[in-house]
Amino acid sequence: MHLTQAITRGALLKADRKALHCGDKSLTWREFAGRVARLAGVLQDLGVTAGTGVAMLADSGFPFFDYHYAVPWAGGVMVPLNTRLADAELGYILDDAEAKVIIVGREYAERVPALLKLAPGVREVVMIDAPPSGDVPDYETLLAARAPVPDVRRGGSDLHAIVYTGGTTGRPKGVMTSHANLVANTLAAIPNMEFNEDMVYLHSMPVFHTAGIARIYGTMTALGTGIILPRFDMDALFDAVEQHRCTHLLLVPTMINRMLNSPRFASTDFSSVTNISYGASIMPEALLKRVLAMLPKVRFTQSYGMTELSPSAAYLQPKYHVLEGPNAGRIKSIGQAIHTAEIRIADDADNEVPRGEVGEIQVRGPMVMQGYWKQPEVTAQTLRGGWMHTGDAAYMDDEGFIYLVDRFKDMIISGGENVYSGEVENALHEHTGVRECAVIGLPDEDFGERVHAIVVPHDGVTLTTAELLSHCRSLIAGYKCPRSVEIRHTPLPLSGTNKILKRQLRDEALAGKGPTA
Amino acid sequence: MHLTQAITRGALLKADRKALHCGDKSLTWREFAGRVARLAGVLQDLGVTAGTGVAMLADSGFPFFDYHYAVPWAGGVMVPLNTRLADAELGYILDDAEAKVIIVGREYAERVPALLKLAPGVREVVMIDAPPSGDVPDYETLLAARAPVPDVRRGGSDLHAIVYTGGTTGRPKGVMTSHANLVANTLAAIPNMEFNEDMVYLHSMPVFHTAGIARIYGTMTALGTGIILPRFDMDALFDAVEQHRCTHLLLVPTMINRMLNSPRFASTDFSSVTNISYGASIMPEALLKRVLAMLPKVRFTQSYGMTELSPSAAYLQPKYHVLEGPNAGRIKSIGQAIHTAEIRIADDADNEVPRGEVGEIQVRGPMVMQGYWKQPEVTAQTLRGGWMHTGDAAYMDDEGFIYLVDRFKDMIISGGENVYSGEVENALHEHTGVRECAVIGLPDEDFGERVHAIVVPHDGVTLTTAELLSHCRSLIAGYKCPRSVEIRHTPLPLSGTNKILKRQLRDEALAGKGPTA
Repeated sequence: MHLTQAITRGALLKADRKALHCGDKSLTWREFAGRVARLAGVLQDLGVTAGTGVAMLADSGFPFFDYHYAVPWAGGVMVPLNTRLADAELGYILDDAEAKVIIVGREYAERVPALLKLAPGVREVVMIDAPPSGDVPDYETLLAARAPVPDVRRGGSDLHAIVYTGGTTGRPKGVMTSHANLVANTLAAIPNMEFNEDMVYLHSMPVFHTAGIARIYGTMTALGTGIILPRFDMDALFDAVEQHRCTHLLLVPTMINRMLNSPRFASTDFSSVTNISYGASIMPEALLKRVLAMLPKVRFTQSYGMTELSPSAAYLQPKYHVLEGPNAGRIKSIGQAIHTAEIRIADDADNEVPRGEVGEIQVRGPMVMQGYWKQPEVTAQTLRGGWMHTGDAAYMDDEGFIYLVDRFKDMIISGGENVYSGEVENALHEHTGVRECAVIGLPDEDFGERVHAIVVPHDGVTLTTAELLSHCRSLIAGYKCPRSVEIRHTPLPLSGTNKILKRQLRDEALAGKGPTA
Repeated sequence: MHLTQAITRGALLKADRKALHCGDKSLTWREFAGRVARLAGVLQDLGVTAGTGVAMLADSGFPFFDYHYAVPWAGGVMVPLNTRLADAELGYILDDAEAKVIIVGREYAERVPALLKLAPGVREVVMIDAPPSGDVPDYETLLAARAPVPDVRRGGSDLHAIVYTGGTTGRPKGVMTSHANLVANTLAAIPNMEFNEDMVYLHSMPVFHTAGIARIYGTMTALGTGIILPRFDMDALFDAVEQHRCTHLLLVPTMINRMLNSPRFASTDFSSVTNISYGASIMPEALLKRVLAMLPKVRFTQSYGMTELSPSAAYLQPKYHVLEGPNAGRIKSIGQAIHTAEIRIADDADNEVPRGEVGEIQVRGPMVMQGYWKQPEVTAQTLRGGWMHTGDAAYMDDEGFIYLVDRFKDMIISGGENVYSGEVENALHEHTGVRECAVIGLPDEDFGERVHAIVVPHDGVTLTTAELLSHCRSLIAGYKCPRSVEIRHTPLPLSGTNKILKRQLRDEALAGKGPTA
C-alpha cells in the first residue's frame, strides 16, 4: 500500500465531494488530486528525484497538504520545519538534512536569506503567495502552469520524511520514518480513532509535527473531509466546529484546558463532535474528568507515542474514559499496546520487569522509525535489541495498561512541544557570563510543564533574567526559552559521577527555595 | 507486525478472559497461547523448520485454531486441506505442496493410508483424538507433554500458506500467500467489518478456506471472542447465536437463504447480532432485500475477493445496505475498493476502460498473493503488469462502485465453493465411454449455481447419469460432481476457434432444450 493511494482513491470514489476546506475555500478530491500531481511535476522540474530532501516552512493550509502527497508522488523526502524554531536551528536542520528545495509561506519570507546562508545546499526556493518578483517563483503560479505527472509510487522501506526533534545532546536529531511506518500508523489509527469517510476532521495541530503529519494520512486514507486551521487559535476552533459541524478533533491537554476555560465554550454548539483524541503530553486527571463531564457524549481516545513511533504505540480506548462501572479506573493510564505494536517494560539490561514494577517503555513493530539521520551510533543505542527505547518510565498492570511515571530522557513537554534540557543549556552556555546552568521542567497548570533554568554566573559577572532570555531567543525557539530563571552563586549540586542532580534542583524549586524570576 | 502477535497480545491484555469456545469447552487467551507455543514445539520436534509444509485435514475446532498460529510460530507453512475433496485430489495437493507433516481429525483417520500412498513425501502424521495405538501420536497427548517454544517471528514476505483452489487447466493450483498479505487483510478488515475486542464472532465458515482463515486472524487480532462451529449446521448456528449472544457472523448467500427459510429463524433471538458480513458468491438482490427486512438492525458488509486476494479487495459498506435515501441503489454492487487496494476495470490489453464499460476487475495492493506454487508461467500471466487479473467481468460507476457482470474464468460458484469446469470435464473424460463433454453452471435457488454436464458418448456406448456420477465421485469432491447431466448424441457446438460454445449450451439448457436428468 502506498500513502499516495488515498489521493487516487479519493479522486475515484469521491471526485466531486469536499476533501479539504481552509478559510473560505474548498477543494474537491479531484481538485486536490490535480494539485498533488502538478506540484509533483513542479518539484521534479526543480530537480527532485528519488530521495531528494524537500523542506517546508509555512503555516498549515492547502500547500502543506499538497506537500504531504506531492513530495512522495515526485519521489522526494519531506523535511517539514517547525515554524517556531530560531533561524540558527532551522539553518542547522536544512543543512543537516541536505534539503535541496524549500517551500516557504509568505509569513516566513524574510527569514529565507538567513536560512540560505546557513544552509547553502538549498538550491531552490518556492514562495507561497509571493509578492511579484523576477527572482523567486510563486507556488500557485507554478502549480497552475504545470501538467500533472504520474505517481512514482514510493513506498515500503523508502524514506518518507526526516522530522527533527530536540536532542539530548543539544542538537536536533532527524528522525527517519519510512513509508511503511506511516502506512502502519494509518491502518492502526483508522479503527482506533474511529475515522470514517463521513467524518469532518479538524486539522488544528501543526502539520510539521509527527502527530499532525500522521493525522493527514489517517484521515485522508479514510476519505474523511478535512477542515484546516492555519494556526491554532481558540476562536478559530470554535468557529470551525460550529460552521463545519466537525466530528473529530485532535487536541493536546493544554488546548483542552484552554477550550474549557474559554468564555465561548458554553455557547458553542459541540453537538456534532463525536470523537476527540488527545496526547503529546501527560493529561492531568482533573482536566480529563472535567472534559468528560462537560462533553459527556464524546468518545475520547488517548494516544501515546513520539516522533520515533510515527507516532503512536498505545491507545486508551473510549470505553475506558469512564468514572464508573467495570471499565473505570483506567483514566490514569496511557492505555494498552495497539494491535500493531509490542510493548514491554524493561530494566537497564533490557530484561522485562515483572508487572507493576517500573522500567523503561520499549516498543517493537512496524511503527518504529528507521533511525536517526546520519547518527548510526545513537540509532544503534536507541534501537538496540530490535526495541525502540523510549526513555519513558512506566509500569504495566496485569491487563497491559501502562502507567507513566517519569521520563528518563532529560526532556520537558510544554504545551505538547518537546524541549530537551540540553538544547536550552547549550544556548545558555553560549552566553559568556554563564559558568554553570541546569534546565528543568516545573509543573504548569496551562502548559503541563514549563521550562525553568538555574544559572550560576562567572565570578564578578552580573546576569539578569531579561538578558539571558534575550540571548536565548536569538538562538532557539521561543517555546524552548526559560519561562523562569533562578540565578544562584553557589555551585550546582553534583552526583557521585559529577552529573548535576536535577531531581534535587527540582525538589528545591518546588519547595520554594531560591529566588525565581 | 506479525500475525502471531495477536496471541502474545491476547495473553497480555486478556489473559484470563475467553478467547475461544467450541462445544462445551472454552479456552482463555493464556490457555490458547500456551497451546500454540506447545504445538509449535511439537512441530519442531517433528522436523518443522523454516518453510516446512504442514497440512491439516480436520473439521474446525481448537486444533485448527492452534494450527493457524503454531505453524508460523514454529516457522512452517500452512497447507490447509478442503475436507470435501476426494482422496485423489488431496493426494495430489499433499504431493504438489511437498507437505512433510499432516495433522488429521479422527473423522478423516481412515483416509490417511490412501493419502500417504499418493503423497510419499509426508513423513509425519499427528492424529487428533486418536484411538490408543503405538503407531501414531495423539495430538492432545503430544501437546500436553511438550514445553512451549519461543515464536520464530515469521513475517513480511515469508510464505504463510499454500491454499489450493480449483484450476482452469483441470488441476488445483496452490495460491501462495505471505504473512504481509494476511496482515494487510487483517488491518483492512478490522475497521470495515467493525471488529472489536468486545465482539463475539461465530466461526461458521470452513477454516481451510481463505475467508475462514482470514477471519481467524482478523477477529483474534481484534481480541474478540470466537465461537467455533465444527461444521456448518443451521441448528448449531441458531443455538450458538442464542447461547453465546454472538455479535458478528460471516455467511455465504446460500447459508443466509437457508437461515431465513428455517422454521427456527422466527423463534431465535438474534438481538445480539450487530454485524453480518457475506461474500464468496453473488448475493441475489431479492435475498438481500429479504434479509434486510428481517434483520433491520444488523449492519451488513459485503466482501468481494478470492483466495488470490487473501481474500478481500472491495467492500460494500453497511451504509449502502439500504433501500431508501441518498445511499440507496448500491445493493446491486459488490462495493468499492478498500483503503488498502487499487482496483481498475481493464480491457484485454490491460488498458483501463471508461467508467460504465465492462472489463476485467484487476487489483493491485498488499493483499495480492505472491503467486501460484511452482507455476511461474501462470503466475506471470495472472500478475502481469503488477495487477492481479481476477477473471471477473464488471463495470465501475462514477463513484467507484463495482458491478459484477460475469466471470471470464470457466468457473461455477456453488454454495460458496469454486468449481472449475475444467476439473469436472477432466474427470468425465477419464471415463472411457465419454467422447465429448462440457460442464456449465446453471442458476440454482439454494446454491446460486449448480454444476450441469452435457456429455456425448462414443458411438455405440450407452451411458447413464448414475454411472457417470459414480465415476466422478471416485475422482473429485462431491460438491464438484454434476447435479444434472444431459446425454446427447450430436457433437457439441464449436466456435470459430474450435472452442465449445458454452454460452450457447447454457442458453439451450435454460430454454429447456434437451433432456436433463
